[in-house]
Amino acid sequence: MNQWLQGDERMDQLLSHNLSIIQSPSVFSFSLDAVLLADFAQPAKHNRAKVVDLCAGNGVVGLLLSQKTSSPIIGIEIQERLVGMAKRTIQLNELEHQVSILHGNLSDATKWIQKDTVDTVTCNPPYFAVGEKSIKNPNSHLAIARHELHTNLDEVMKVSSDLLKMNGKAYFVHRPDRLIEILETMKKHRIAPKKMRLVYPKVGKEANTLLIEGIKDGKDTGFRVLPPLFVYSEDNNYLPEVSAMLHGIR
Amino acid sequence: MNQWLQGDERMDQLLSHNLSIIQSPSVFSFSLDAVLLADFAQPAKHNRAKVVDLCAGNGVVGLLLSQKTSSPIIGIEIQERLVGMAKRTIQLNELEHQVSILHGNLSDATKWIQKDTVDTVTCNPPYFAVGEKSIKNPNSHLAIARHELHTNLDEVMKVSSDLLKMNGKAYFVHRPDRLIEILETMKKHRIAPKKMRLVYPKVGKEANTLLIEGIKDGKDTGFRVLPPLFVYSEDNNYLPEVSAMLHGIR
Repeated sequence: MNQWLQGDERMDQLLSHNLSIIQSPSVFSFSLDAVLLADFAQPAKHNRAKVVDLCAGNGVVGLLLSQKTSSPIIGIEIQERLVGMAKRTIQLNELEHQVSILHGNLSDATKWIQKDTVDTVTCNPPYFAVGEKSIKNPNSHLAIARHELHTNLDEVMKVSSDLLKMNGKAYFVHRPDRLIEILETMKKHRIAPKKMRLVYPKVGKEANTLLIEGIKDGKDTGFRVLPPLFVYSEDNNYLPEVSAMLHGIR
Repeated sequence: MNQWLQGDERMDQLLSHNLSIIQSPSVFSFSLDAVLLADFAQPAKHNRAKVVDLCAGNGVVGLLLSQKTSSPIIGIEIQERLVGMAKRTIQLNELEHQVSILHGNLSDATKWIQKDTVDTVTCNPPYFAVGEKSIKNPNSHLAIARHELHTNLDEVMKVSSDLLKMNGKAYFVHRPDRLIEILETMKKHRIAPKKMRLVYPKVGKEANTLLIEGIKDGKDTGFRVLPPLFVYSEDNNYLPEVSAMLHGIR
């Protein structure tokens, strides 16, 4: 057993970047969606920007983004247990100088981070509206991460917009069945949708994930739909683009 | 020279359906988008529905739909010259019992067709907003078909909604850069977006066409993104799905 781990936690490797991450099957394990989001986001490479990851979970998105930018990355996460895992993950990867995590509600974000100062926001939010027929996970840790129990799309977009400076960029991963609401809510909060990439589990299947980029106070024109991403081959292996994100090998 | 043709018109074959269509390079030739729209639309097969094709051009969409439904199909087209081509096309295919075409503005549609009575509407509208930087075609026939000179997205959606009965379905082909406006305008006119299919010219390229289905007074939930459609192979041949639409051969 390792000095870094508690309870049923384990340490997984993000081989594409030579990083380690603390996970727990009963509390939180990152999903492919977090990896897709970190791949999709385009923070400035230099060290003079400010990057914020909302609904940070165990910190996986911030951890991956630390390999794309030298700028400081601040995660915000409501679940104390996950904040603890994220903090230890930051330490064990020796990223304390770049990556930090705050424990609190999204609505508190602008108490800690000045409004209109952030260059890049990322968020992998809970996907399921409360009241949808979907059964809530009986495990409260997992339920909070998946269902809009403590935040919702409107708050995610409002806080993202509040934090971003003019022309700052926001990146979200979500589900295509909420596309219309996502676009409306972005617009409501002055984030102009700019690029979308749809993720299909396999050739011939409907999209089950969407990635979207918006620009605060951006123009209404010039929306683009990027090439689609397919996850699995017919024989259920990761296709090269996804494999490279996960394992660094095509 | 053929009794059916005028000026620089020619007769093309829609081999997938054993149909002939009158075209003219200087007036109107149908595009792949019309074929994609007819393939995407799902009118009832029986003969008891009412189908309307707005912005009908030379009638290609109605002609193709006649192979998917036994119900009457009414096209509406503003350009008299195209209405003439469409009428002759209907005659030479001996489809006068099923397919008709009306000459007039979209705003006149509900003078001819009773409101709230149509089961299926299709429309391949002009794509370019007037005032966009895009150069208008100096040929007025082509310009009217491509630019919003005589109608626009809002009118297309309003007329579609006026015509449709409750739970009637509308099918549109358009450009992805106007997706956000398309979704907003559908909603404004009580057409709930239900399914979208994105068309990519090749693997690895951005989408350049979108197909969308909406239901009049439908629920806001359950939006789906269908499997993507790729048009060309790396060596610029039609891929099997598109080839089958055009030539009936995979």
